[in-house]
Amino acid sequence: MHSATLDQLVSLAKRRGFVYPTSEIYGGLANSYDYGPLGAQLLKNIRDLWWHHFIESRPDMTGIDSQIIQHPQTWIASGHVAEFNDPLVDDLITHKRYRADHVIETWLQLPSQQSNPELQSLIIENLSLVEIEQLITKHHIVSPEGNPLSAPKGFNLLFETAIGAVTGEKSKVYLRGETAQGIFANFKQILDSTRMQLPFGVGQIGKSFRNEVTTGQFVFRTLEMELAEIEYFFNPQTQEWQKLLNEWKEAMWQFVHQTLGIDESNLRWRQHTDQERSHYSLDTYDLEYQFPFGFKELWGVAYRTDYDLKQHQQFSDTSLEYRDPQTGESFIPHVIEPALGVGRAFLMVLHHAYWHDEAKNRIVLRFKPSLAPIAVAVFPLLKNKPELVTKAKEIYHSLLGKYRVVWDDRGNIGKRYLSQDEIGTPFCLTIDFETLDNDTITVRERDSAAQTRISLASLTQYLDQNLR
Amino acid sequence: MHSATLDQLVSLAKRRGFVYPTSEIYGGLANSYDYGPLGAQLLKNIRDLWWHHFIESRPDMTGIDSQIIQHPQTWIASGHVAEFNDPLVDDLITHKRYRADHVIETWLQLPSQQSNPELQSLIIENLSLVEIEQLITKHHIVSPEGNPLSAPKGFNLLFETAIGAVTGEKSKVYLRGETAQGIFANFKQILDSTRMQLPFGVGQIGKSFRNEVTTGQFVFRTLEMELAEIEYFFNPQTQEWQKLLNEWKEAMWQFVHQTLGIDESNLRWRQHTDQERSHYSLDTYDLEYQFPFGFKELWGVAYRTDYDLKQHQQFSDTSLEYRDPQTGESFIPHVIEPALGVGRAFLMVLHHAYWHDEAKNRIVLRFKPSLAPIAVAVFPLLKNKPELVTKAKEIYHSLLGKYRVVWDDRGNIGKRYLSQDEIGTPFCLTIDFETLDNDTITVRERDSAAQTRISLASLTQYLDQNLR
Repeated sequence: MHSATLDQLVSLAKRRGFVYPTSEIYGGLANSYDYGPLGAQLLKNIRDLWWHHFIESRPDMTGIDSQIIQHPQTWIASGHVAEFNDPLVDDLITHKRYRADHVIETWLQLPSQQSNPELQSLIIENLSLVEIEQLITKHHIVSPEGNPLSAPKGFNLLFETAIGAVTGEKSKVYLRGETAQGIFANFKQILDSTRMQLPFGVGQIGKSFRNEVTTGQFVFRTLEMELAEIEYFFNPQTQEWQKLLNEWKEAMWQFVHQTLGIDESNLRWRQHTDQERSHYSLDTYDLEYQFPFGFKELWGVAYRTDYDLKQHQQFSDTSLEYRDPQTGESFIPHVIEPALGVGRAFLMVLHHAYWHDEAKNRIVLRFKPSLAPIAVAVFPLLKNKPELVTKAKEIYHSLLGKYRVVWDDRGNIGKRYLSQDEIGTPFCLTIDFETLDNDTITVRERDSAAQTRISLASLTQYLDQNLR
Repeated sequence: MHSATLDQLVSLAKRRGFVYPTSEIYGGLANSYDYGPLGAQLLKNIRDLWWHHFIESRPDMTGIDSQIIQHPQTWIASGHVAEFNDPLVDDLITHKRYRADHVIETWLQLPSQQSNPELQSLIIENLSLVEIEQLITKHHIVSPEGNPLSAPKGFNLLFETAIGAVTGEKSKVYLRGETAQGIFANFKQILDSTRMQLPFGVGQIGKSFRNEVTTGQFVFRTLEMELAEIEYFFNPQTQEWQKLLNEWKEAMWQFVHQTLGIDESNLRWRQHTDQERSHYSLDTYDLEYQFPFGFKELWGVAYRTDYDLKQHQQFSDTSLEYRDPQTGESFIPHVIEPALGVGRAFLMVLHHAYWHDEAKNRIVLRFKPSLAPIAVAVFPLLKNKPELVTKAKEIYHSLLGKYRVVWDDRGNIGKRYLSQDEIGTPFCLTIDFETLDNDTITVRERDSAAQTRISLASLTQYLDQNLR
């Protein structure tokens, strides 16, 4: 069913205005993408559904919107300045630099390694710098050019910039590497200004930045990325973290399956191994989607204990304790963090929707109707019949503002259908001569291509029911 | 009527969770603010109304979402690298640095200058570096410490950072100073992937960054800011720019007045003078709102001619011409740019809503109901009557997901009303013993404080009608 290759998605995305390479007229920028008209709307729809589902509709959740640039102590306290690293190796002859994990991954796929079961069970992300070095030495792993490699070094992923107008007095600051720390750093302010009682969660959506060496998987991994993160605070004395973690896993799965409309056969959980997990996390799972390049992380959920709040309390010398209004007890809450990559959700939705309908020789993006960038297209049957055009325009204008609607009067109806199928428009309305007689129109449904004649009077009711 | 001082707004905003100083636990960060639970929702509501009004509801508009980090040539072509400057002066004794325009502004307010009509008619923003220097020399203007000042120098406002993992091979890039250039740089991609025909506009909302020396006007001027910008492209041979500019002025005014609910007496247009205007602009207006610190720019609209597209065409060596499908003529479109500061719209909405109701001794945020962060609050009359609490919870849960709704059972009803008034909740619903008898509830309206008894069956209809 879901046979789209990454190349097919990239090509369709560019041709129809979902995603363009950033600054293409200037030769592009590594691992950077801009969202075009349809992509920007699809992205907004995903973002809005997440916010509505997790922030606006839950009594135990609230949202914030913190800055990208924060006080640099935030990233020292969080451990990002010391530990947020990619392992890099140099080609000792050409002095080109590579990500060690990518070099090893490529090497593992060579036929000579395929027969070694010990190697094939390696989880590269779990390797420490020392283990990477041992592996390179033991197996004489070489650079893509075939030259010997240096020992691996950690390279910090935070982007640096500086605030202040005077060179000598500029202060180094970082672009945030995740939105989560903005929630932890505002924990006291949130407690002081709201009536939230444990357990409660705080979420936010926003840009984050990681100066990674990446391997080009379209919007799956970009230097500038949008994250939708939640920190769910609780009292570990009165609530079992395993139970809460399972509830969050269930909530995440159901959002992807029901709200974003993804088949469950394309989803799976992967538990992090002990080595892979951050030292402060007691358990971590990735909700993985089957992307064109295999099952990969869409949405992680980690039990982070009280590590982050404790760190910020220590580095800021400010109490981040919560006082239980019933018992009077004060303590630092523990936290479960579901962290979603919005660009990854976008790629999943696009990939999952892609359908080459061979029977009808068409490409269809079968978005859930609530996600589709365009909900309704309006056509006059013939462009050169003013009475049809006038009536169709009238209907089009009556829908504007209520639905995301487009007008199309080019070519013939068949071509217009194919064009709308390719961008995932769930419904096409055709105004013909019968419309002028009896105020009925043809509604054509995208996936079945079935056409139904309905009265204009029932149109908005029909659309409201079917666009959910 | 609108008597709120900036201090009152800052205080309420922090106390009730609209806006916190960024990284407050680490001592804060200059001119940086985070939006708390109510602020993040109010900001989202403003953003969503803008997007719905200008992007989703207009046949001649579309949206994009381009990166913050773009190819650095973008900012060379746009002129930002060379010309995006603040005038700075040094105190020659202490070596402290100040914005020259701010020093002059403070000096102008001294009693000794108040009687000089020539000085009082100065528009400081219009002064060139040479004119600033002449003014300082002629009037012996000194630093805030009373010391002589250096000649002014321009300081570039773009934040710099670098991409790439290797120090020697890092490439300098900038954080965007405005979202507009992401639209111009994608103009060809948009033409190639959509069917937009002139005149049409492209809008986007996103973070921009300006390394300014500012004077602390809360979220009015921040280093990191959110902009909502539109580039409206047209053919100057077939459309008069004056007429289009007027149409945009009207559309902006009506959005602020009708959609955001701002009284027209707080708004005015100010036309830029010849010196003040950018050299490529033929006409520029600021829609100004009467902030606590006077009438200041909320939303600028400029006729930018074909300057930007021409620059990008030249620097990228890529044709950015539009081909008219009717005439076959190719040309670079001209553009009108309405550019809104989202943080300024937020501050305007908050300031305009603030009402000290002396008769009832309460503070009320009289938001338009569609803008209010919380739409409905649900109260059981008494907290210790389980039958009331159960019924109230049932009603609360039936509204969750449909409206932004909160639960409150603390203190007495009067205090709950005051608390909701202060955050601008338009409707409070109280469940009492009569509710248990006949399924009616009390709806209390925020501004009038009037209470109406309505049936539960008519509740959603009542709310739908009144929350628009």
